[in-house]
Amino acid sequence: MTDLGKTVVKGGNIQMLGGGNPASIPEVELCLREEMERLLGDGGRFETMIGHYDSPRGNQRFIEALASLFNEEFGWPVEIRNIAITNGSQASFGILFNLFAGEFPDGSIKKILLPMTPEYIGYGDVSLSDHPLFIANRPVIEDHVGDKLFFKYRVDFEKLVVNEEIGAICVSRPTNPTGNVITDSEVHKLSELAAEAGIPLIIDSAYGVPFPGIIFRDAEPIWNDNTILCLSLSKLGLPGARTGIVIASEAITQYLCSANAIYNLAPGGFGPTLINRLVESRELLPLCRQVIKPYYRQRSNEVVKYIREIMSDLPVRIHLSEGAIFLWLWIENLPITGETLYQKLKKRGVFVVAGHHFFPGLQEDWEHKHQCIRVSYAADPAQIREGIKIIAHEIRETYHRAFS
Amino acid sequence: MTDLGKTVVKGGNIQMLGGGNPASIPEVELCLREEMERLLGDGGRFETMIGHYDSPRGNQRFIEALASLFNEEFGWPVEIRNIAITNGSQASFGILFNLFAGEFPDGSIKKILLPMTPEYIGYGDVSLSDHPLFIANRPVIEDHVGDKLFFKYRVDFEKLVVNEEIGAICVSRPTNPTGNVITDSEVHKLSELAAEAGIPLIIDSAYGVPFPGIIFRDAEPIWNDNTILCLSLSKLGLPGARTGIVIASEAITQYLCSANAIYNLAPGGFGPTLINRLVESRELLPLCRQVIKPYYRQRSNEVVKYIREIMSDLPVRIHLSEGAIFLWLWIENLPITGETLYQKLKKRGVFVVAGHHFFPGLQEDWEHKHQCIRVSYAADPAQIREGIKIIAHEIRETYHRAFS
Repeated sequence: MTDLGKTVVKGGNIQMLGGGNPASIPEVELCLREEMERLLGDGGRFETMIGHYDSPRGNQRFIEALASLFNEEFGWPVEIRNIAITNGSQASFGILFNLFAGEFPDGSIKKILLPMTPEYIGYGDVSLSDHPLFIANRPVIEDHVGDKLFFKYRVDFEKLVVNEEIGAICVSRPTNPTGNVITDSEVHKLSELAAEAGIPLIIDSAYGVPFPGIIFRDAEPIWNDNTILCLSLSKLGLPGARTGIVIASEAITQYLCSANAIYNLAPGGFGPTLINRLVESRELLPLCRQVIKPYYRQRSNEVVKYIREIMSDLPVRIHLSEGAIFLWLWIENLPITGETLYQKLKKRGVFVVAGHHFFPGLQEDWEHKHQCIRVSYAADPAQIREGIKIIAHEIRETYHRAFS
Repeated sequence: MTDLGKTVVKGGNIQMLGGGNPASIPEVELCLREEMERLLGDGGRFETMIGHYDSPRGNQRFIEALASLFNEEFGWPVEIRNIAITNGSQASFGILFNLFAGEFPDGSIKKILLPMTPEYIGYGDVSLSDHPLFIANRPVIEDHVGDKLFFKYRVDFEKLVVNEEIGAICVSRPTNPTGNVITDSEVHKLSELAAEAGIPLIIDSAYGVPFPGIIFRDAEPIWNDNTILCLSLSKLGLPGARTGIVIASEAITQYLCSANAIYNLAPGGFGPTLINRLVESRELLPLCRQVIKPYYRQRSNEVVKYIREIMSDLPVRIHLSEGAIFLWLWIENLPITGETLYQKLKKRGVFVVAGHHFFPGLQEDWEHKHQCIRVSYAADPAQIREGIKIIAHEIRETYHRAFS
């Protein structure tokens, strides 16, 4: 992923369709600016934010506000002891995955079960042991009835094995990279499987509910004390603040506190303090529902429409865009690998992410892995159109070269 | 350390002399407030700060400004590739110590050599392997000539063994907890020993030079490409921002970038962006020299003076206060352990840190470890006086009970 920090194209424009940066949404930016101005005007709160270490659990006032929000809005029996702040979701996963998987003192080896790949690229590297941390399940591919452009992955419950090798189940909802949103009943089914096996279900809701709420279909926020719900402030518009939130049983948040103390003394206080009033005043969820979600839905629709137009002659299909900020393109029978396509696009200044990175833990070989790319639709619209145009051109060329 | 986040005293006042929170210095707070106001007024910079992931190396503009500062002020041949940002110094150490020590793929086991204990408590817990990460050297205790109140630790170079078991040498300068500052010639000597052994010298300058510069004696900022200099924005007054800075050879900063990418995607952008203009304009070092250093020197002098008055009947000695924000009290022949004294003080609402925590890697038994406590002098002066009074009373009681 360090590749994303480099500028490798000399001259010419760069179309950054690769990264996970959220969009600049004027209403959200204005809201966050006003929050900072309020902090500066609220005798000493700015100084407290910058000048004090939070506790290892994170900013006390923010945690109290979140617990109250979750109680009132969703009836979750969440208390302060059920919440821990981290330096972003990636930090949360690093700690959690190594807690539930890897080699244990008794010599046993456990893994995180990803019930459906493709899954988030960032899970792949966090192992602290020599053993692979993941085992993944291949999905069922469903044709979206009535529109040939779309397809959708489904959890293949028939092939899902939760044996004693599994230390936890983890699913991102919506899924990064595909935009798939598993249904409430699928979540409940996974939750039951986890409970039966005596292991937790980790739900990565970095793009999901309750906030930032970038989900375009019905989806309940779900939590119980066997669920580890991972939230983040990044896709709300605050990636620079590096704030992750974990809601879990007391034992697990206590472990996160210890990890925070040891590796960071305390998590950062900027994000929690900046966003705190919006949680306390209950303005946060309306902002998500009325501004953030509609914004991304419209952007997704526009880009899908543009792809439909410009790639109508190509065997390119899109995963049903149910949430998150990416489109997942499946180029059936692509004559080159997704990695080669990525390299070709990079030379032309267009950054996407090759699909095969998104299958951590999938042991079987699967051609499909090499026929997909992830495209962000959160960047500047003109840049995205230009990028999509180049992608279409490159795919077209590839087919021509292969079949002429 | 999670203890510091809890309020354990019911009723009554709490004197927080235990933590490492920097002082509230009005001039510094005003300066940082003005920087935030400038950011808000500088078309879009606030929005860039909150709304974008930095690269895994950290904020590009800040790194450029730092490289330029180090070049111009100290003549260090530091380029962008020699600097990496982390989420605070504790995060830097976690990555660095596990890079240079622990179990290696070839089966060899290496350790970090701490040439002089006491050393920083936070080093103790970061090991990712089952092997102890540290080996430490007992210091020579030197009486400070002419003033019986003071003593000073010195690196015992005669007993310092840098064999093939050592993966790196690490020293904090000034030392947390003692306020000791090893001399330039001692640094050069350690640097030579490290170079001869083909291992790096890590200098933890979280309180030191070039910034925040909380050092009350002559001390050169020292760097070469076999030195890993760890800086932080915390003791400048920004602990809430969690910003660490590592200056090292390219290979090492590249490793830090990878660790950032894997465990955090990117380090936070708040601290770097807030402080950036002060680095570019060269206002930062004068602020350290003219405001921060004199402030702490005066506070240290005041508290030493108070201890001299109030503990004149007690066998309490203070490590020469050469820097950092702590006083290190040595209570000779204390009839109880420092841990028991800590527990007694905690019950009376006074938080200090028992000395024995500050000897990571010291394998031999040493009575001295149990005769010391660390006291912060950065909190509110009235709170500190009250705390010191209670400490004096408790020590006096202890001696009376033991010897009457």
